Amino acid sequence: MNTRSTAALPSVRERILETALDEFYASGFHGATMRNIANSAGCSAANVYNHFENKSELLVEILRRASDEQFTATRNALRKAGADPAEQWRVAVVAHALFTARNPRACLVANTELRYLDDLNRRRVVGSRDAQEHLFVEIAEKGVEQGLFDLPRVHQAVTAVLTMCSGIPLWFRPDGPLTAQEVADDYGRYALNLVGYRKV
Amino acid sequence: MNTRSTAALPSVRERILETALDEFYASGFHGATMRNIANSAGCSAANVYNHFENKSELLVEILRRASDEQFTATRNALRKAGADPAEQWRVAVVAHALFTARNPRACLVANTELRYLDDLNRRRVVGSRDAQEHLFVEIAEKGVEQGLFDLPRVHQAVTAVLTMCSGIPLWFRPDGPLTAQEVADDYGRYALNLVGYRKV
Repeated sequence: MNTRSTAALPSVRERILETALDEFYASGFHGATMRNIANSAGCSAANVYNHFENKSELLVEILRRASDEQFTATRNALRKAGADPAEQWRVAVVAHALFTARNPRACLVANTELRYLDDLNRRRVVGSRDAQEHLFVEIAEKGVEQGLFDLPRVHQAVTAVLTMCSGIPLWFRPDGPLTAQEVADDYGRYALNLVGYRKV
Repeated sequence: MNTRSTAALPSVRERILETALDEFYASGFHGATMRNIANSAGCSAANVYNHFENKSELLVEILRRASDEQFTATRNALRKAGADPAEQWRVAVVAHALFTARNPRACLVANTELRYLDDLNRRRVVGSRDAQEHLFVEIAEKGVEQGLFDLPRVHQAVTAVLTMCSGIPLWFRPDGPLTAQEVADDYGRYALNLVGYRKV
């Protein structure tokens, strides 16, 4: 029984974004074509151009959304984490890794195709990613200040941890032996180890 | 004064491989064209096809070489490392990270373009990467056996560390504040922390 009303169906714009992600994932930014995206979305190329000026515009929108949603997931998780920087750090990494494991295509495309955007468009995406990174840097700095983390270069360690998480889509399979949550928990533990945290 | 003999100039084949890497890096596998590669190498497209059957053949050769050279660098470093698994682990990660920092384009292309190869060609590259991974797994398993590392899932931790290293080309600049060696040393330390190593 299909009880979905028409209103619950994704809009044309949403459908275009979904099929564009498929296309960027399968063929890369340079291999993707607006025509294929339109075909898969079941609309005309002209219709795609009504919503997005060009391929860059589509990629920017996909990457910004993914980054914003990941950021929201991390901040939501942090709200329940209390004041201990070690716990905040672990919780933030677990949430970040969990989002990556559950949204592998968007996260992978973000890492592989971002460099093909021109400077201006890249900055539109990078702004959102920088905000995420800043959140992790703040937590790690608190950890260092309170003597919990042993870390000479906070920014570099944050980058190392975030790129470690960004590799999850390269191997994680939802039908594999581990759940996304188990993988995310493992990565939280790696991240806590990495910063030299010693439980007292 | 130019004292190089003609024999010291790179062969056409080598020149094609170099310019192909530039092209894959700048435009991605799907955006790269044999014609552009030929132009940049200063030869005809027919000449490129004399050496490489198609784009896949070129990408496979570039990625296999990079992987083999990285593997050799790691094994050479390990020869001087002694029998302590913790020291072996640190030394192997430092060598791996150092190669990545010094060969950013090949390592980045390996991570972003590999998925566009068909199954058979992907396996030709992955075989070489698997051998590298196996070396790290062996060391980590020794560390666990000797009670030096606290690690429930050795393979996963190795993957986490290797993807962490593979992110270096995304931010490292040779003219930045840190040398490639300093970055590699930091990553060696992160990797040692990550596996839960406790100095006794």
